[in-house]
Amino acid sequence: MTVHSGETTARRGRPGYDRDQVLAVAVQLFNEQGYDATSVADLASRLGLTKSALYHHFSSKEELLAIALETALSGLEAVLDRALAVEAPASDRLTAVISGAVGVLTDELAPVTLLLRLRGNSAVETAALERRRVFDQQVTALVRAAQDEGRIRTDVDAGVATRLIFGMINSVVEWYRPDGRVDPDLLAQDVLRVALDGLHPREQ
Amino acid sequence: MTVHSGETTARRGRPGYDRDQVLAVAVQLFNEQGYDATSVADLASRLGLTKSALYHHFSSKEELLAIALETALSGLEAVLDRALAVEAPASDRLTAVISGAVGVLTDELAPVTLLLRLRGNSAVETAALERRRVFDQQVTALVRAAQDEGRIRTDVDAGVATRLIFGMINSVVEWYRPDGRVDPDLLAQDVLRVALDGLHPREQ
Repeated sequence: MTVHSGETTARRGRPGYDRDQVLAVAVQLFNEQGYDATSVADLASRLGLTKSALYHHFSSKEELLAIALETALSGLEAVLDRALAVEAPASDRLTAVISGAVGVLTDELAPVTLLLRLRGNSAVETAALERRRVFDQQVTALVRAAQDEGRIRTDVDAGVATRLIFGMINSVVEWYRPDGRVDPDLLAQDVLRVALDGLHPREQ
Repeated sequence: MTVHSGETTARRGRPGYDRDQVLAVAVQLFNEQGYDATSVADLASRLGLTKSALYHHFSSKEELLAIALETALSGLEAVLDRALAVEAPASDRLTAVISGAVGVLTDELAPVTLLLRLRGNSAVETAALERRRVFDQQVTALVRAAQDEGRIRTDVDAGVATRLIFGMINSVVEWYRPDGRVDPDLLAQDVLRVALDGLHPREQ
């Protein structure tokens, strides 16, 4: 995802970016070298802009972080909200959440990567981690409800099961590449297969 | 894991540390704020030592990193070597590798966390990432052999299955705490249950 090639050059030697492009480059840089370690000067330098040209687009580094985290979190929350809105057994809702979460990861890879690497040193980060915590709690409640239905095994604690499944889902950001050989829809299907039915063949 | 309480104080106001204690504090600090962002001065300050007192124990920050990564990698490699040394079906070996890897994670939580967060900017890091890559390839070969035996499902690619299962295993470093309520042996059992048999009850 490089927007650095000059295709959008507004004036000779002065690359022109719109807000979304600045945001994309910022998130990429945060993921490469860490949010705390990235200065506005680093970002300006990567973009080939002056700091003041950059401040034309965004008021602060934290605003860029907040927008990216909002993209990731609202995507995940929408998946959960949609699953809870339909009249269906908890286990079907859980299936929809797992597959939808993989979709958000592959669609919004860079913002979700940023979210998952947060260490929570600022107010924006703390608020994002709190929203993640609420999301995790709601998924755990869904796993527990599916256990009560008898559709999810009860010999693994609902909280541990949720963490393991989301550990599997979230690890996808470490290796999935949008231009790679793994199709995102097939990946969602593979995650569902492994999460719900395990590595053992069912017919065994 | 704090060794900062002064129990090992050698002289009044001059905490004394052995090599292992310095290493433990260093790894903790690297995990908190990132290896690149941690200076020898930061570490000396956390320990309440001068930089020269610290250099009495270790020649460089990179030496501390190298020792910690060796602990994590040799632990994981030993699990794989032990599994490959026994005469057994590939699927049994894979079971031993999954459960053994969870054991290394819970036993050596801080060094493994450091390994998993590496971005690979130095020679030590690049070498460690290469050893991780070889480990992953060997596990993928084991998954493929177990597929050939008919003991692991073949409708998920062996490479993707390995990444998903190790994604699940590795995510444990994000929430497992040695003094927490989750027993490490039961955790290894839960990971095996979810990885091999999935969330669905088998009797369904």
